[in-house]
Amino acid sequence: MARIVMKFGGTSVADLDRIRNVAGRVKREVDAGHEVAVVVSAMSGVTNQLVKWCQELSPLHDAREYDAVVATGEQVTIGLLAIALQAIGVDARSWLGWQVPIRTDNAHGKARVESIDGTLLIERMQSGQVPVVAGFQGIDPVRNRITTLGRGGSDLSAVAIAAAVKADRCDIYTDVDGIYTTDPRIVPRARKLDRISYEEMLELASVGAKVLQTRSVELAMKQRVRVQVLSSFEDKPGSLVVDEDEIVEQPIVSGIAYSRDDAKITLRRVPDRPGVAAAIFGALSKANVNVDMIVQNLGADATTDMTFTVSKADLARAQDVLEKARPEVGFEGIVADPDVAKISVVGVGMRSHAGVANTMFGALAEKGINIQVISTSEIKVSVLVGGDYTELAVRALHTAYGLDGPA
Amino acid sequence: MARIVMKFGGTSVADLDRIRNVAGRVKREVDAGHEVAVVVSAMSGVTNQLVKWCQELSPLHDAREYDAVVATGEQVTIGLLAIALQAIGVDARSWLGWQVPIRTDNAHGKARVESIDGTLLIERMQSGQVPVVAGFQGIDPVRNRITTLGRGGSDLSAVAIAAAVKADRCDIYTDVDGIYTTDPRIVPRARKLDRISYEEMLELASVGAKVLQTRSVELAMKQRVRVQVLSSFEDKPGSLVVDEDEIVEQPIVSGIAYSRDDAKITLRRVPDRPGVAAAIFGALSKANVNVDMIVQNLGADATTDMTFTVSKADLARAQDVLEKARPEVGFEGIVADPDVAKISVVGVGMRSHAGVANTMFGALAEKGINIQVISTSEIKVSVLVGGDYTELAVRALHTAYGLDGPA
Repeated sequence: MARIVMKFGGTSVADLDRIRNVAGRVKREVDAGHEVAVVVSAMSGVTNQLVKWCQELSPLHDAREYDAVVATGEQVTIGLLAIALQAIGVDARSWLGWQVPIRTDNAHGKARVESIDGTLLIERMQSGQVPVVAGFQGIDPVRNRITTLGRGGSDLSAVAIAAAVKADRCDIYTDVDGIYTTDPRIVPRARKLDRISYEEMLELASVGAKVLQTRSVELAMKQRVRVQVLSSFEDKPGSLVVDEDEIVEQPIVSGIAYSRDDAKITLRRVPDRPGVAAAIFGALSKANVNVDMIVQNLGADATTDMTFTVSKADLARAQDVLEKARPEVGFEGIVADPDVAKISVVGVGMRSHAGVANTMFGALAEKGINIQVISTSEIKVSVLVGGDYTELAVRALHTAYGLDGPA
Repeated sequence: MARIVMKFGGTSVADLDRIRNVAGRVKREVDAGHEVAVVVSAMSGVTNQLVKWCQELSPLHDAREYDAVVATGEQVTIGLLAIALQAIGVDARSWLGWQVPIRTDNAHGKARVESIDGTLLIERMQSGQVPVVAGFQGIDPVRNRITTLGRGGSDLSAVAIAAAVKADRCDIYTDVDGIYTTDPRIVPRARKLDRISYEEMLELASVGAKVLQTRSVELAMKQRVRVQVLSSFEDKPGSLVVDEDEIVEQPIVSGIAYSRDDAKITLRRVPDRPGVAAAIFGALSKANVNVDMIVQNLGADATTDMTFTVSKADLARAQDVLEKARPEVGFEGIVADPDVAKISVVGVGMRSHAGVANTMFGALAEKGINIQVISTSEIKVSVLVGGDYTELAVRALHTAYGLDGPA
């Protein structure tokens, strides 16, 4: 017997038939003798509609009212799922964020979970009832108002509840059946990973594999919650996200991720004197523009070309900020290129193996792919390449690291 | 300066434009120097959709889950209206039933309001903020679960909140512009009443004038809340529902109501002995069939014909129950007639004036309308007539009591 938190996203509860299907899956776990709590999102499309209404009424709407409005999506699904479970003989009841309670700070629209009282949920689970908990929402206990955790927040709710009820596992049901070595739409021979470490999942999540919300992986790592990603629609085991120590045979590289969400900015002929970098990145930071990869090439004279990436959504703002800082900083010109892709090779095995980056550069060179920027972390090597080369680069690296499954 | 509760129903908040229109109306009251709280229903159609989902998943769904689901409709509108108010410079915030709190019993789906703590709402109103309160919902404080007050419950919420915040008036905005002497679709010369007493409104509400929910009128009468019924879409004064004492010139008859929701049942040749009526109506009561008008005609022999009305929706069940009771009671036969209408003449002035019933009988006789059953209360005379005669009877009585307005 295990204690399991099962989480179902919007597409898994998109209509009554799918809600019945979810109820059936929950019943199977209950019938197998497990203690089960369920976390659900809003029916797909519902949250978008609610957000649109708020924005149409006022682009600068009160985030507290926004939260009251959008939190209704999950409230509908928990009630409906509880009814569907009862209809097939499973004792169940719905729980809203303020009923559990799931306490958060008061950063409405993107609140952080501060504490979850698991007492009531554990009591109910032990008595054989299935708590059906609204994802994505909590309560600011000081002001007694509903908060939401930001888009994708239901994954975070599930992991946080799993930690609070000391669950053996948190199963995230989704429309893919696990975590792959890379995007199977690009590499048909991509393999599903049985296990992946938190650290690797975090790198993969943050560079474009949109299976799990990044904050939920961080929380799972911090609280040591074992997470399984699996399909709502098929019956097969998924991928386990666990502590490194639980993975016996650690490959050097676990996966290849890519992202087309970045744009490249190059500042030409920046004066090479102390304080210049601080002036540039300070101005961007003040304007809330996140900078990712940074390289600097010293030129023949006393100037340097400085290249970095920002999110594509921030590109116009970044250019504006830099143009204003130009008199102070004194560079010659700004060259912006939105047509780039970041390709990353991720694996905890890199820590103990040399030559991972070299394999990458060699494989890309062989295909004639020019590397524009390089950045590395302990378990990741990322390169920036021309956007047109995305698929080619991913396929070349997938093969180079021996990740291809059977044809 | 007055303190006003403004209530808007589903058609008044059916889309964003109408929500903006409501915000504009609230702003005008605020600009006029009044302290205002607003109560709103769900956008029209939303509650029906949510109810349908619950029923499709399970006809015998858990009423607690049903309440969690359907209460979301109002939660969406309070958030959206608060945003719309803020957008035009009115300080506003949304309040859910559990935030106020609006405490109810635990009769989910048709809960009764037990107490409302008006403290927070009054504080906010005095500080110039407009509370936007979710109608139709409350909380069972013992089990900490959301309750709903039954269909039309937002009227009840508005009146209860008006009482709790000691409002000078509760304005119910709706799609009609007031309370009429009768249905204007039947009598084009029907007049809008400036004032009507609680007692009269209660009789009119319960016999078919669907402007105000009956329970809300009862509560207004009990708590002495002055209620105004007026149009969301037009700019003109509505009808005030107030204490009798506030109505200076009391007409004998205030209005003519009609209902086609009843069916007539006649039991032929019922033995005329003690205990027979108890056996008949006891059986119906046990089957939850409400009986309204009752008459009994003693025949030439030791039997009697017994006639009474039940709701059309209950007719089949009533016949079934009576058929089963037949051996015990010993009547000869059941004659059911669903094609009847109940026409009622209502007015507190009847208390002090004789001859009201006589005028009714005379006016109906003159048109050749046969009266099947008569029943009276202190301020009402009702008759049952053939369904085909409904409009003719209403028009004849409207004229007979001098209620016709200018042509």
